[in-house]
Amino acid sequence: MTKRIDFQVDPAAYRHWRVEYDGPVANLFMDVDENGGLFDGYLLKLNSYDLGVDIELADVVQRMRFEHPEVKTIVMQSGKDRVFCAGANIRMLGGAAHSHKVNFCKFTNETRNTFEAAEADSGQKYIAAVRGSCAGGGYELALACNHIMLTDDSTSNVALPEVPLLAVLPGTGGLTRVTDKRKVRRDLADVFCSTEEGVRGKRARDWRLVDEVIANSKFDAAVQERAHEFAAASNKADVAEGITLSPLDRTFHDDGSVTYSTVEVVADRKAQTVTLTLNGPEEDAPADMAAFTAQGAQAYMLRLARELDDAILHLRLNEPSLGLMVFRTQGDPDKLAAHEALLTANADHWLANEVLQYWKRLLKRVDVTSRSMVALIEHGSCFAGILAELLFAVDRSYMMEDEFEGDNRPLATVTLSSANFGPMKMANGLTRLETRFLDDDGAIARARETIGEALDAEAAEAAGLVTMILDDIDWEDEIRIFLEERASFSPDAMTGMEANLRFAGPETMETRIFGRLTAWQNWIFNRPNAVGADGALQRYGSGKRGDYNMERV
Amino acid sequence: MTKRIDFQVDPAAYRHWRVEYDGPVANLFMDVDENGGLFDGYLLKLNSYDLGVDIELADVVQRMRFEHPEVKTIVMQSGKDRVFCAGANIRMLGGAAHSHKVNFCKFTNETRNTFEAAEADSGQKYIAAVRGSCAGGGYELALACNHIMLTDDSTSNVALPEVPLLAVLPGTGGLTRVTDKRKVRRDLADVFCSTEEGVRGKRARDWRLVDEVIANSKFDAAVQERAHEFAAASNKADVAEGITLSPLDRTFHDDGSVTYSTVEVVADRKAQTVTLTLNGPEEDAPADMAAFTAQGAQAYMLRLARELDDAILHLRLNEPSLGLMVFRTQGDPDKLAAHEALLTANADHWLANEVLQYWKRLLKRVDVTSRSMVALIEHGSCFAGILAELLFAVDRSYMMEDEFEGDNRPLATVTLSSANFGPMKMANGLTRLETRFLDDDGAIARARETIGEALDAEAAEAAGLVTMILDDIDWEDEIRIFLEERASFSPDAMTGMEANLRFAGPETMETRIFGRLTAWQNWIFNRPNAVGADGALQRYGSGKRGDYNMERV
Repeated sequence: MTKRIDFQVDPAAYRHWRVEYDGPVANLFMDVDENGGLFDGYLLKLNSYDLGVDIELADVVQRMRFEHPEVKTIVMQSGKDRVFCAGANIRMLGGAAHSHKVNFCKFTNETRNTFEAAEADSGQKYIAAVRGSCAGGGYELALACNHIMLTDDSTSNVALPEVPLLAVLPGTGGLTRVTDKRKVRRDLADVFCSTEEGVRGKRARDWRLVDEVIANSKFDAAVQERAHEFAAASNKADVAEGITLSPLDRTFHDDGSVTYSTVEVVADRKAQTVTLTLNGPEEDAPADMAAFTAQGAQAYMLRLARELDDAILHLRLNEPSLGLMVFRTQGDPDKLAAHEALLTANADHWLANEVLQYWKRLLKRVDVTSRSMVALIEHGSCFAGILAELLFAVDRSYMMEDEFEGDNRPLATVTLSSANFGPMKMANGLTRLETRFLDDDGAIARARETIGEALDAEAAEAAGLVTMILDDIDWEDEIRIFLEERASFSPDAMTGMEANLRFAGPETMETRIFGRLTAWQNWIFNRPNAVGADGALQRYGSGKRGDYNMERV
Repeated sequence: MTKRIDFQVDPAAYRHWRVEYDGPVANLFMDVDENGGLFDGYLLKLNSYDLGVDIELADVVQRMRFEHPEVKTIVMQSGKDRVFCAGANIRMLGGAAHSHKVNFCKFTNETRNTFEAAEADSGQKYIAAVRGSCAGGGYELALACNHIMLTDDSTSNVALPEVPLLAVLPGTGGLTRVTDKRKVRRDLADVFCSTEEGVRGKRARDWRLVDEVIANSKFDAAVQERAHEFAAASNKADVAEGITLSPLDRTFHDDGSVTYSTVEVVADRKAQTVTLTLNGPEEDAPADMAAFTAQGAQAYMLRLARELDDAILHLRLNEPSLGLMVFRTQGDPDKLAAHEALLTANADHWLANEVLQYWKRLLKRVDVTSRSMVALIEHGSCFAGILAELLFAVDRSYMMEDEFEGDNRPLATVTLSSANFGPMKMANGLTRLETRFLDDDGAIARARETIGEALDAEAAEAAGLVTMILDDIDWEDEIRIFLEERASFSPDAMTGMEANLRFAGPETMETRIFGRLTAWQNWIFNRPNAVGADGALQRYGSGKRGDYNMERV
């Protein structure tokens, strides 16, 4: 798979989804073009999906929030007869490299989470209207919606047939959402998840697998009625007009580097390292949210988020050998703080809210990116507020101390803002500082007292905000040694270590999906019973069951 | 590895551990016999350990609670110069099958947890007195203790070198305890866990890796002083004399079956199924705790626990192809309830407490056993109280309904007791009924109202306590079909599914260790970078580093 996967799509070019707007209700139709697979070698039959289908879906969800703030209920439904969605395409999975499988699942998980975030953070509720077969990843799509309606007929069902049929797990949150969100009794979940043909009708409702079961003849009307009911009950403010998410300004280079308007991605494949430099704003902050809205997608805080998001996704899927991400910033921290302050002061403005919530999602994406991450806090940098949050997302940070010879940039500082103390919560439900100073309320209170203060290296170290401070004499050697050493470790061990150390403290449904569920799935994705020549994924469709080694591990 | 691993050991035959008793303080010396490995092909140098060493350790911890209730502080220390413990033996790991590695780590994890349980449940506190090198699994031993003292000299350190040195994780809770128990800042944890040589002296204390750092010359005295201080401050009641854990009465059969005094283990390797029948007590309950204590290890409730525990460990390590465990009971539920009631009514009696706490640990061991588990609630059975708890530990249960032709045993019932509503909490901090009825307080309250009532099939089903009830017509076919089908599924997929469905709700440090940490480690244990011919484990000791595929997954 050497083709570059592009995470930017133009809605006019969607091949798999379409939306019909009906005031506060959006009807979202999944109608996968079976010839529209991202790669050759498989047909996307029966509304099965690959990463390309999911990239479009993620785009739909994102645009719904920015471009269609008038929408309060989204009805996810099938554009095909007799099938809602058959889940991830099995031939695609069977032919994909391990790293593609894993990153495909991670991206689809992140997208499923955005359905729930849309209601929690923005009042946009997703309903699944299930007619026809809804299996595997198809049911996981429905599970991520906050209300599931099922047609009561002989062909409509919900199922998680992965375990009996494919010898893998429902890998997009299915097992976790069944027990933790739907609160299906665990023994019934055991029956459900080991029954190839799934469950339909009244039993699906009795077991809490769906919320409503409705006769076929009344189904469409009931769905639209419910959608408008939910919209009327929503506490989402009325907003007449959104902004347009215009195409990103970016240039891809052959060596893996990318140039955006605010982000420079410099790849060094030989050193297995990539440097992401985030440039602070050149322009002053907009005067008010009217001015911000007029700038739309060009507004600095939104543009930076979109560019960084795109860069991270690009690196995850297209540059697997760049195992070490180095984050830098350059710019005026005061000017940056003014851009953030406009949003924070207007957090009840719909667009300010959307931009802040987007940063929250983006920082969560950083948290679960399985690359070693380090921040270099150099002179001339602008790690302030939301960008300082990056320091607590990465695995460690190094900061320049005192003047460096021949370097006349302003001395390195770190500046906290209110954004570091609440709105950017991690998946574990804590802020990154709460995770960093687990159960140490004193350290958090002391950090809070520095809000707005540009902390120099010594002060930042004393506050526990940076890992190491280095002066002119040590900086170059120490950084070089670290980068070389880190890049030499086994990437698998780093992935496992980082996935454990980054999430101290409580776990939530969301961290359970990325932790327990995903780790087990990745294990299974390495086992011959699933992926071997005689494993279930390879044999799928051949009429022959997988040939299993029956030893339990 | 066809040799049968035996989990019963005679303290007189310990090869690796010795204990010196000093009133309320026990000095526990790790002094591994390098020729005493469980298998051929490796020497247990530098206090490194294999499963055999850990089986002895688990025995020490268990006997400390039953045989030495006078002990309030245990000082874990090395019997060797210059090394505390080098961790799990790498040659053993390099040569072991995947399933052995995984089950070895699981057992060592369970044993580490018993250190913490000993203080929480019984007031026996473990101190680690670290002199010399304390690396990898060695430091994980110390982390499981609740107080760590480190000698301040040039050769004494703590380290988790697994990631840089071996391309695997510290797999016995290390990563989790560093962040969640010791609350080491995550970026410092990242530095620590990727530094082969570890950390020593003051920095170890500043980073919270140890509690005290003490000059070499004062170390021994300080350790004993601290141990006696902790003992004096303990709220553990004074108990002069324990009971003896006499050898189990058991017979192993060639086909994998085992006969104990109360438990029958019948293996069917062809069907990949094993049936564990727990027989209720023949004798009446002891009149009081004095009578119970006089019976000692022969007392029914303790004997049953020890036998079931041994059976489960035997099956895990020695019978990997028996992927499906069927739990049955036969006996008089009232008589059984009387045995349990004596313990519950005397829960503040040291021995009653120890037996109940042992059941708690045993049921947790069932929870993390990676076999499919089903309970058959037949006529004549005694699923009451603690044994009913098994119904909520297994993946699903089937119950006989109404009379069966030619079967004159008493009709099947399920009886709850107070034991199902608090004392037997799972690793997630909830009772099994709270996990089963997640956030459904009504269902739990209704179940509580039935305490002491023998529920027939219909009532048990209505209360949500059993998965399915079947009458004489359906029982045999349904059970047969289920057993055959379950045994035909990919064991890996079942392991992953069960590990997810069994632990709905919150996660704790303990579940994080068995969930997130263990799943990632198992994934890594399948990756060529760790276990391949050129991987780090195979190359260990050769002077050559592992040859890694540098792609990130």
